[in-house]
Amino acid sequence: MAELPETPLLDTVTTPDDLRKLKPNQLRQLSDELRSEVISAVGETGGHLGSGLGVVELTVAIHYIFNTPEDRLVWDVGHQCYPHKILTGRRDRIRTLRQGGGLSGFTKRAESEYDPFGAAHSSTSISASLGFAVANKLANKPGKAIAVIGDGAMSAGMAYEAMNNAEQAGNRLVVILNDNDMSIAPPVGGLSAYLARLISSSEYLGLRSLASRVAKKLSRRMYKAAGKAEEYTRGMVTGGTLFEELGFYYVGPIDGHNLDHLIPVLENVRDAEEGPILVHVVTQKGKGYAPAENADDKYHGVKKFDVITGAQQKGPPGPPAYQNVFGETLAKLADSDDRICAITAAMPGGTGVDKFAKAHPDRAFDVGIAEQHAVTFAAGLAAQGMRPFCAIYSTFLQRAYDQVVHDVAIQNLPVRFAIDRAGLVGADGATHAGSFDVTYLATLPNMVVMAAADEAELVHMTYTAALHDSGPIALRYPRGEGVGVQLPDTPQQLEIGKGRIVREGKKVAILSLGTRLAEALKAADQLEAKGFSTSVADLRFAKPLDEDLIRKLLTTHEVAVTVEEAAIGGLGAHVLTMASDEGLIDAGLKLRTMRLPDRFQDQDKPEKQYDEAGLNAQHIVDTVLKALRWNESGKIEGARA
Amino acid sequence: MAELPETPLLDTVTTPDDLRKLKPNQLRQLSDELRSEVISAVGETGGHLGSGLGVVELTVAIHYIFNTPEDRLVWDVGHQCYPHKILTGRRDRIRTLRQGGGLSGFTKRAESEYDPFGAAHSSTSISASLGFAVANKLANKPGKAIAVIGDGAMSAGMAYEAMNNAEQAGNRLVVILNDNDMSIAPPVGGLSAYLARLISSSEYLGLRSLASRVAKKLSRRMYKAAGKAEEYTRGMVTGGTLFEELGFYYVGPIDGHNLDHLIPVLENVRDAEEGPILVHVVTQKGKGYAPAENADDKYHGVKKFDVITGAQQKGPPGPPAYQNVFGETLAKLADSDDRICAITAAMPGGTGVDKFAKAHPDRAFDVGIAEQHAVTFAAGLAAQGMRPFCAIYSTFLQRAYDQVVHDVAIQNLPVRFAIDRAGLVGADGATHAGSFDVTYLATLPNMVVMAAADEAELVHMTYTAALHDSGPIALRYPRGEGVGVQLPDTPQQLEIGKGRIVREGKKVAILSLGTRLAEALKAADQLEAKGFSTSVADLRFAKPLDEDLIRKLLTTHEVAVTVEEAAIGGLGAHVLTMASDEGLIDAGLKLRTMRLPDRFQDQDKPEKQYDEAGLNAQHIVDTVLKALRWNESGKIEGARA
Repeated sequence: MAELPETPLLDTVTTPDDLRKLKPNQLRQLSDELRSEVISAVGETGGHLGSGLGVVELTVAIHYIFNTPEDRLVWDVGHQCYPHKILTGRRDRIRTLRQGGGLSGFTKRAESEYDPFGAAHSSTSISASLGFAVANKLANKPGKAIAVIGDGAMSAGMAYEAMNNAEQAGNRLVVILNDNDMSIAPPVGGLSAYLARLISSSEYLGLRSLASRVAKKLSRRMYKAAGKAEEYTRGMVTGGTLFEELGFYYVGPIDGHNLDHLIPVLENVRDAEEGPILVHVVTQKGKGYAPAENADDKYHGVKKFDVITGAQQKGPPGPPAYQNVFGETLAKLADSDDRICAITAAMPGGTGVDKFAKAHPDRAFDVGIAEQHAVTFAAGLAAQGMRPFCAIYSTFLQRAYDQVVHDVAIQNLPVRFAIDRAGLVGADGATHAGSFDVTYLATLPNMVVMAAADEAELVHMTYTAALHDSGPIALRYPRGEGVGVQLPDTPQQLEIGKGRIVREGKKVAILSLGTRLAEALKAADQLEAKGFSTSVADLRFAKPLDEDLIRKLLTTHEVAVTVEEAAIGGLGAHVLTMASDEGLIDAGLKLRTMRLPDRFQDQDKPEKQYDEAGLNAQHIVDTVLKALRWNESGKIEGARA
Repeated sequence: MAELPETPLLDTVTTPDDLRKLKPNQLRQLSDELRSEVISAVGETGGHLGSGLGVVELTVAIHYIFNTPEDRLVWDVGHQCYPHKILTGRRDRIRTLRQGGGLSGFTKRAESEYDPFGAAHSSTSISASLGFAVANKLANKPGKAIAVIGDGAMSAGMAYEAMNNAEQAGNRLVVILNDNDMSIAPPVGGLSAYLARLISSSEYLGLRSLASRVAKKLSRRMYKAAGKAEEYTRGMVTGGTLFEELGFYYVGPIDGHNLDHLIPVLENVRDAEEGPILVHVVTQKGKGYAPAENADDKYHGVKKFDVITGAQQKGPPGPPAYQNVFGETLAKLADSDDRICAITAAMPGGTGVDKFAKAHPDRAFDVGIAEQHAVTFAAGLAAQGMRPFCAIYSTFLQRAYDQVVHDVAIQNLPVRFAIDRAGLVGADGATHAGSFDVTYLATLPNMVVMAAADEAELVHMTYTAALHDSGPIALRYPRGEGVGVQLPDTPQQLEIGKGRIVREGKKVAILSLGTRLAEALKAADQLEAKGFSTSVADLRFAKPLDEDLIRKLLTTHEVAVTVEEAAIGGLGAHVLTMASDEGLIDAGLKLRTMRLPDRFQDQDKPEKQYDEAGLNAQHIVDTVLKALRWNESGKIEGARA
């Protein structure tokens, strides 16, 4: 483990109250120490690094100027909040970031009064801050709301909806646009080009001198003096007409690493009587840590690393990640099918669409953080004869649910949904878990819902989806590495709504959907060892159900258990409904459904999360035995003949 | 019935091909006849009138200039498409609009090749058009895509996401902004103010002369001649910097009722080599029909009416509509609770928030068509101690699903969701049905889901929700009038997760959620007449379930049936899951779940839709009897002792 950095000044700061006792000329040193502490901590834990390093000075400046926590500070996405956590009473736990039982990698209300609004998904901060501001206004309470939002997050429609409504907050709302021209991947679209033009404007090129002039010239009541002064000041640094058209006072761009510029500008903004104000701050992702600055991804998300060299820990080479299996399979299929295209919402690497884009750049579309548009754009492509794959994480597809219903399912258009991060996801915690997609998709008419049991199945399902032109189809698969099975040379077209028997038995049937199949097989071994002959089926489809297979398993086995990495309302509910519709339950049916629990689970290692969820082999065994009323003495209580 | 209008020229036009054979100077007459035909038809059927009247000339001009259906014309929302339907081969069925078996009130792919993309929810048109444009580009096919979108629809984030991605379509994409400064209600927000400024600009005030100048001066290759000419032309009519910042060529504003202006401008736009282009057209909702022009709502949606007088048919006075019971109850509660506030997304009248706003204007928020913002704004209000009610139709809440999950449920914030239009909705058809909310909400941890059985229950549930500060809570209720029960003088706080027995019986138990309760009681009468003593429970809560009550009903009755106005995955699935979890099904349980069918249902009268869905009293009786294996001879086959 690397030595801890020396942080004499930071050691005196536990909360923003301590910070606000410092003199302005001490803030540079504090920022430097804070940066070292962030690097040191993330070196130990892994996590999001580049974004936090980019806002060290901004974090210090905001807490120095604004009266947090009474002034509500809302970090958009929240993955840039590690410096904020260190300054708000959580330094003692900062080396537990993203670990089980430790600090969340995002802002979280339960953690601190300095986190008034939790986040993790993008672009929620302006809406939430507007809620804070308006509530204070209605209650005649003091307190401002400050949203810090990245330029990438600005591409989401939600941010625009909020800006369009911001005027009612008046000067209680401050939006800080943290412009690093890069969220996870380089941003795209008209807005990005627009911001680039702002920054490259002559005003920005003369930024240093300008910012000092702004700081000197603006009186604390700069907006009060209407007319000339305001026009002059704002006209001098402005260009932000887009924001002004939406009703904001635009200030910027400001160098987000220069405290001598940040502090006086934020002070003026705080005291302005007009508003809402948008402060355009330009920062550098990964700032102040050479390995991050020099990396293409600016160390957006890192494993544990050596602070001196920046070298990230590597595990032994394992099976390929699901996302890459998907991306490479799709790229190969597209070699001989020019109707296939792929759409990602700002996650080219995370979804494997980068692999596809490399082979077929003209048919790969990164629409930015804009899931709603992604889905309906795909629907338009499908309506015009293309075979679009919309590759979106399970949790983010929630953003486009209405588009899935209204534009895809009702019209029965063949959009393919490649749903990554299905099930529990580990260190990102509850906000990123893909828990609900089986439920919210399988309830829709026309929709086909598949889940891959392993990476070979994913290959088959990708191929099956490509050929499925009669309506929408979704395939879900987890975060992370496959289980290590051989990838097929030739993908196989699966019959829609047909599962497979993986293991034949007589007494117990385990009906699995998705990658719990491995646990189901382990459970079968254990059950077999106790004398219970066990069948295991990989149902493959949550919708349509393989009714023949399910009926057969339910009626020829004494106990049946469904297992899925999804919340209530998914496979288990559909199997129960079928069994009820058909009257299979009338005469007695020992059928149990195993699913994610009815609570949001915090971050931990995925295997621990599944253990906590009660979805490992042992839990399957226990569920079966309990249904059989088997007790430890080896007897079955009151068993049927 | 009023006389049919005389339409000699329109009678010669069955498809746009016929239209394109006319001379430009015949289009005025055609438009006038088309307008008369629309008024006459909607007088007979009821439906959306004002929006269609506003785009008569635009509809004629687009089909005259563009090569539909090869050029893809996408009407946003689609409720303004009646003139379009008349011109595209559907005049013979136009008097079946919104009737069972008749034409849809929106665009619909199944109806016509001239409807390349169905709609009904707002703000999807640019994304879909972009899909068409890009697909054509990839396939090297000719064909443009034209999206016609209202200014109200522009407030949705989805439109912005699409515009932000539009550049890749080049000149294959044309967006026509139909600006009538009014969607259903007057629009709100910064964008609206911005558009108002554009229109009130000096350029627009001199519109008539300007438009002629544009028409004369623009060569058919206006954008080809780069440099001065373009700058001059666009600068002359422009002001549309917001759209230009997003990468559009802005043309406008144009008088949308003047064909002499529309035709040449659209011709130029069609032939432009640069793009995408946004054409800003100003129209008047209800144009050309005095009763509509003079009405506050411009006859947005009307009942059947007398064409001469404009008087709308009124039924006999009935019970109050659910929305009004909600709005008035909430307003009353807010008299003594200043934390209560109400949020609507552009549906003040439809949700009853208008009643609340009248009493408490400072605590009523109409955020425009911006459901995502609405929900997270409410979450912010709740986090700051307010008691926000987010009043959104079931189908539109789908737009904010991620915000419900991520900002409300995960944080366990007490946002109250008042969900109108739950279940089947009649003439608006599948796109507006509120079928999925029980499923997509009840799967979420922390969420409480209620459904009102009648308007008195709605009063209690509104009150219960107001007092529920420990987490999110949803109450759902249908479109239209209540059942006519007495409204309570004093609202009653319901115990969370507790249902009620409405009728006591012994053999059959009907477990109802929502307003099918009336059918359940009818069914109980019929069953009783056949000798089956029947209990009826109003469960009130889909989540948390009243487990004690359900367990008791399931174990003391021979047959149990759940009934709900919701799709698979809702109440029935939760009851089955509970019965399975507890092992109640092990020894045999005649439990059936009645729910909406696994298909999207077209428009019809609600009672017919429910009949088609198999959710009326007779279906309940049939389901019970079938479960009992009762046959017409009055015998039960193989009944248990």
